[in-house]
Amino acid sequence: MKPVYFELEKESKSARAGKLHTQHGTISTPMFMPVGTAATVKSVSPEELRGLGAKIILSNAYHLYLRPGHKLVEKMGGLHSFMNWNGAILTDSGGFQVMSLSDLRKVTKDGVEFSSHIDGSKHFISPEKSMEIQRSLGSDIVMAFDECVKHPATYDEVRRSLDLTTDWEKRSRAYELKPHQGLFGILQGGMYPELRKLHYEMLKDVDFEGWAIGGLSVGEPPAMMYEMLDVSVPLLPKAKVRYLMGVGTPQDLVEGVARGVDIFDCVMPSRNARNGTLFTSVGKVHIKNAKYVEDNSPLDPNCDCYTCKGYSKSYLRHLFQAGEIFGSRLLTIHNLHYYINLMRQMREAILADRFDEFRAAFYGSYATNLAEEENKS
Amino acid sequence: MKPVYFELEKESKSARAGKLHTQHGTISTPMFMPVGTAATVKSVSPEELRGLGAKIILSNAYHLYLRPGHKLVEKMGGLHSFMNWNGAILTDSGGFQVMSLSDLRKVTKDGVEFSSHIDGSKHFISPEKSMEIQRSLGSDIVMAFDECVKHPATYDEVRRSLDLTTDWEKRSRAYELKPHQGLFGILQGGMYPELRKLHYEMLKDVDFEGWAIGGLSVGEPPAMMYEMLDVSVPLLPKAKVRYLMGVGTPQDLVEGVARGVDIFDCVMPSRNARNGTLFTSVGKVHIKNAKYVEDNSPLDPNCDCYTCKGYSKSYLRHLFQAGEIFGSRLLTIHNLHYYINLMRQMREAILADRFDEFRAAFYGSYATNLAEEENKS
Repeated sequence: MKPVYFELEKESKSARAGKLHTQHGTISTPMFMPVGTAATVKSVSPEELRGLGAKIILSNAYHLYLRPGHKLVEKMGGLHSFMNWNGAILTDSGGFQVMSLSDLRKVTKDGVEFSSHIDGSKHFISPEKSMEIQRSLGSDIVMAFDECVKHPATYDEVRRSLDLTTDWEKRSRAYELKPHQGLFGILQGGMYPELRKLHYEMLKDVDFEGWAIGGLSVGEPPAMMYEMLDVSVPLLPKAKVRYLMGVGTPQDLVEGVARGVDIFDCVMPSRNARNGTLFTSVGKVHIKNAKYVEDNSPLDPNCDCYTCKGYSKSYLRHLFQAGEIFGSRLLTIHNLHYYINLMRQMREAILADRFDEFRAAFYGSYATNLAEEENKS
Repeated sequence: MKPVYFELEKESKSARAGKLHTQHGTISTPMFMPVGTAATVKSVSPEELRGLGAKIILSNAYHLYLRPGHKLVEKMGGLHSFMNWNGAILTDSGGFQVMSLSDLRKVTKDGVEFSSHIDGSKHFISPEKSMEIQRSLGSDIVMAFDECVKHPATYDEVRRSLDLTTDWEKRSRAYELKPHQGLFGILQGGMYPELRKLHYEMLKDVDFEGWAIGGLSVGEPPAMMYEMLDVSVPLLPKAKVRYLMGVGTPQDLVEGVARGVDIFDCVMPSRNARNGTLFTSVGKVHIKNAKYVEDNSPLDPNCDCYTCKGYSKSYLRHLFQAGEIFGSRLLTIHNLHYYINLMRQMREAILADRFDEFRAAFYGSYATNLAEEENKS
């Protein structure tokens, strides 16, 4: 038995419910992974994450390589022990961060030379180096090292990148990980359906424990992302878990699940929370808004998270305006609850074979209110 | 029965154990009050405070008057409800903050005109205004409005101030508070024993529910503060609770209790935590120190707080260096635990009539290590 494997439980049209088994627990899918960039999901404790229903978090090879260093984390017993999280961990390969965060990036066939966004120091990451980092971190799910092409990119740019990224992903697979670790491949191909298909052909004989769809949510309109999902997901084997990287808004999660995606990660719920934007069952709340000064009601009348059970919008607005740490924490808890609860509701709908009804109801409440709010702002 | 009253349980020489009764619970003394300046003890939740053994917190009339406004807090059901804290709350009067935080301060017999440290706007606080603010906040213990003289001050400056501050405290007592609120008087007199005695004579016929010793920990050496306590505490009635304002270091707490003080507040444990300085049973830890990079042990080998049970110095240092919110939270929890646990140990020692032994043991471990550390730095 592989250390990481997927068990398909139920299909409701294209949407799926399943179980992703890891050596740090089993994750019921669809599932959202909170992002713990620097070995902490900003402001919340492992116990709070558990309480929210999180079973797996994402952390970043790039960030932990630069600070505090993957060898240090390994010495401290690995990332699970270091951050006191006994659930599953997925680490990304650093490919995306090298593209988005660092200057002076130089790509060769071997790997990428880049300068640290922290202190400008020079570094080199190859597929082998990325695997070494993720091996040291000891995550349950390791992502193959790929090249993330900037958006927009021409057909020829993306096509050329596929050769490089395929080579890098195969070199990732050839690297020996720890026995408990599984490796996921990443399907690239930009916004070109033919290149998505071509990339799957190039990679399909590599035995990954799961498949990610990469290179989306990079600035393209949602309709284009959904079109790429329509092309990409059906290429992937049914027996393997499907991961849509770095996505996205609540609608994106619903549309992703509708198309057969199983797991997601995104900084949006936690980052938006710290910036004062909350997701609720009745649309977005911008807590800074003056209309909440004397609003003694919770963020979301239909929410049973810790924040909504104990605190008013008036208090949350006060904490936000005063720059109080506890405000970030309360708002993060609410947004993560919203995301994880949305996944839970989708899973229940799939298991009951009524996902279409769920999706319609979602658009009837949240999305309508959201559109109204966005039209106003 | 008064809404706030003290019950003396035991004396061990000058040190006392007792119970301070309020309408939001009974506080076993000696006790330390965590500081929740802006209606939150920075980074920690009410449940965490409870878990640490906190029964009473301090909040600030000055800060809450400026933001979000005391009338708003009152509309939201009062401070307990606003911040979801069902334990006791003591509010200071704003006298100290007006002195320490604002520019353009102008003192008249009526009160103090000052400009906000947030936006420079002009405000006026009189004894009656301070009582109005604290009445709206609904704290259990209201502090009389006094004048805090800067240190150092001449004998004549302090003497003149006593007339003003006595008048203000009497006007504070004359103001009608809510039925559940008790008022504490404040003994001033600077660093002059005669003036401490004189001030008590001026105030002794005012029926306060408790007595605070103010104007200390303002930059004077510890020996001078202890000398002022030696003079001041014996003046105060045994039947009333004694509160040493804004104090202090762990040694200050031990020396205060030794002299008959019952309750304390200070930003030191929480502020030092956020700045990376931790109190432990074996002296101070500066978590930024490079020697902790690979230190997989907890902050304090003898501590059973949440932080010490789950996290290493290596991880805490990483969070601190990365500026992570969760680091502030973990470090704050540890320091507050240290302070509250120190008070608990002192209370147990007093009840067992072995406070002197406790004090000697304290100096044998903590203080010795502390002195060594400070000599090195």
